[in-house]
Amino acid sequence: MDIHPTAIIAHGARLGKNVNIGSNVIIGNNCIIGDNVEIQNGCELGTYSASHNDRPLIIGSNSLIRSQSIFYTGSTFGENLTTGHRVTAREGVEAGENLQLGTLTDLQGDTTIGNFVRMHSNVHVGKGSKIGNFVWLFPYVVLTNDPHPPSEVRKGVTIEDFVAVSSMSVILPGITVGKETLIGASSLVSQNTNAGTLVAGNPGKEICDASKLWLQDGTRKQAYPWRRHFHRGYPVEVVNDWKAEFEI
Amino acid sequence: MDIHPTAIIAHGARLGKNVNIGSNVIIGNNCIIGDNVEIQNGCELGTYSASHNDRPLIIGSNSLIRSQSIFYTGSTFGENLTTGHRVTAREGVEAGENLQLGTLTDLQGDTTIGNFVRMHSNVHVGKGSKIGNFVWLFPYVVLTNDPHPPSEVRKGVTIEDFVAVSSMSVILPGITVGKETLIGASSLVSQNTNAGTLVAGNPGKEICDASKLWLQDGTRKQAYPWRRHFHRGYPVEVVNDWKAEFEI
Amino acid sequence: MDIHPTAIIAHGARLGKNVNIGSNVIIGNNCIIGDNVEIQNGCELGTYSASHNDRPLIIGSNSLIRSQSIFYTGSTFGENLTTGHRVTAREGVEAGENLQLGTLTDLQGDTTIGNFVRMHSNVHVGKGSKIGNFVWLFPYVVLTNDPHPPSEVRKGVTIEDFVAVSSMSVILPGITVGKETLIGASSLVSQNTNAGTLVAGNPGKEICDASKLWLQDGTRKQAYPWRRHFHRGYPVEVVNDWKAEFEI
Repeated sequence: MDIHPTAIIAHGARLGKNVNIGSNVIIGNNCIIGDNVEIQNGCELGTYSASHNDRPLIIGSNSLIRSQSIFYTGSTFGENLTTGHRVTAREGVEAGENLQLGTLTDLQGDTTIGNFVRMHSNVHVGKGSKIGNFVWLFPYVVLTNDPHPPSEVRKGVTIEDFVAVSSMSVILPGITVGKETLIGASSLVSQNTNAGTLVAGNPGKEICDASKLWLQDGTRKQAYPWRRHFHRGYPVEVVNDWKAEFEI
Repeated sequence: MDIHPTAIIAHGARLGKNVNIGSNVIIGNNCIIGDNVEIQNGCELGTYSASHNDRPLIIGSNSLIRSQSIFYTGSTFGENLTTGHRVTAREGVEAGENLQLGTLTDLQGDTTIGNFVRMHSNVHVGKGSKIGNFVWLFPYVVLTNDPHPPSEVRKGVTIEDFVAVSSMSVILPGITVGKETLIGASSLVSQNTNAGTLVAGNPGKEICDASKLWLQDGTRKQAYPWRRHFHRGYPVEVVNDWKAEFEI
Repeated sequence: MDIHPTAIIAHGARLGKNVNIGSNVIIGNNCIIGDNVEIQNGCELGTYSASHNDRPLIIGSNSLIRSQSIFYTGSTFGENLTTGHRVTAREGVEAGENLQLGTLTDLQGDTTIGNFVRMHSNVHVGKGSKIGNFVWLFPYVVLTNDPHPPSEVRKGVTIEDFVAVSSMSVILPGITVGKETLIGASSLVSQNTNAGTLVAGNPGKEICDASKLWLQDGTRKQAYPWRRHFHRGYPVEVVNDWKAEFEI
């Protein structure tokens, strides 16, 4: 347990065992922090939310929140959360385990996120999004939610399991990106995508089955579904399942 | 009046009544802060500007500046400013009342902004921009200003009243986006737009009159001009005018 | 020498002469800071890197690091570095002199950067990038590195001397942007570019020789190569060479 003397921790905050807290961190009353969590310098946890302040912010055990990040009350993050710097997470996020949030990523709230989701830098997740398991969102991806902005209609985006959305792509409101889809960089996705396809362009079009893409490492193996070859950071039991699935 | 003991407030700063200042806030000499203003943790107000340091930073009454935001000297913001987190506002901004600036928004300075303008997260406003009243700029919108970068020629963008620019769109230098225009997501706007049209694509093209778009809420009412149906957060007298205008 | 009492400076950090350090700055053991450097409020220097922590962070003399920026260990920046606010620089950056990094710019690390490079706000430089001299990257430019994300294959982007990449453009993995190329705004660059051309669009296409573009200042002079006319902030001897080159 190492709490920097400049940290400001409300009396009502509940901290697990072996929590390390950096300088100038602020933790509000309505926070429940698991064991073995590191909260780096200048973070704010439990920021007041007018709509969700009756619900706590819950951070699972074994999490790392890098410096200058801000988390509101009224959200739950499972074990092994890892963030970059200056992440913003508003109220109403229900996230599973092993979530990674890149530097400057901006969760607008009212979003469900499965397990093992990885967002890279500067991803923007609009309210009402539903994100499955093992999803990748690369830098500057935006998930929108208003079909005719501004309005009171909210149609969140659905991202199914094993999807990868490449840099700078925008998903339009209400769209479902089907399982194992690959979205190319700088795409504007305006229609639901078929599972396992490559969709790219502005507006986005189905190019081919993603399974036709080759790994550019000389092996000429299939690049998709990506879990055929990309295993870094996943638990052994998950990787073993994937190896069995593809007989590799 | 609640000023955190770790805040650093210069002797020359002028604070109104009932100003609340969070931890580690820095307020420079050249700041004039109105009444009932909340400045959250880690903000910097009155950051030194070589070109504008003789002019103060003025923040109107009843404003809320969320944590980690930075405002330079030499800008004026009217009453009821509300910001997200980590906003940057450089020198030479002249903004009206009821401005909303989303998290990570970056005002480069030398910009005029009317009343009731709302910018969402991560909007970038280049120097020389002129923004009217009741304008909406959605996440990751960029207003540019150099027709052949880098150069000494600056041609700012003009955004007229009631315009809505959707996520990730870029407006090219010197362009005027006409009154009540809707710009689709991920567009590149390279020509002046006609008032009340929908412009979308890369490069952007006029698709139709925006008035032909329907609300996707089952009512099949007109979605544009958006003030026909979207009234959240505007004063009653403004909304009443809009209702009268459209006889609703 | 002016070090704010709230700054936390590790005993092992080596500071040059006349270093000014703002409030709540954190400087780790493994930092070597040159002379006449200003490090503004809330910056973190020498953030721990698992892979590069045996190598120091070196900041050259006469540098200015604006507030809330974060620099990891294991990178070297030459003299006259100037940053905006909230820059993030990960480990393994080898940068020359006179680098400018705009507000919110995100260097992912393992990148080489030449002299006199200028990045504007919110630029994202993926690992493995190689950036030459006198390069300009405008707001929200992204340099990618994975040809089939996610994977273990890394193909960084190469940006040659005097290139200008306009706002919101994405350069795909492994691409070389040839000397003096101009990339238009919101482009997706998917092929190597020929030196001195204008490439624009999604997908990007060669439009013409950049030398055919005129300055929009009434002179009808050539706008590219930009060093014909744009000299602000470069040393006299560099500008004199450029004037001689173009006999101006």
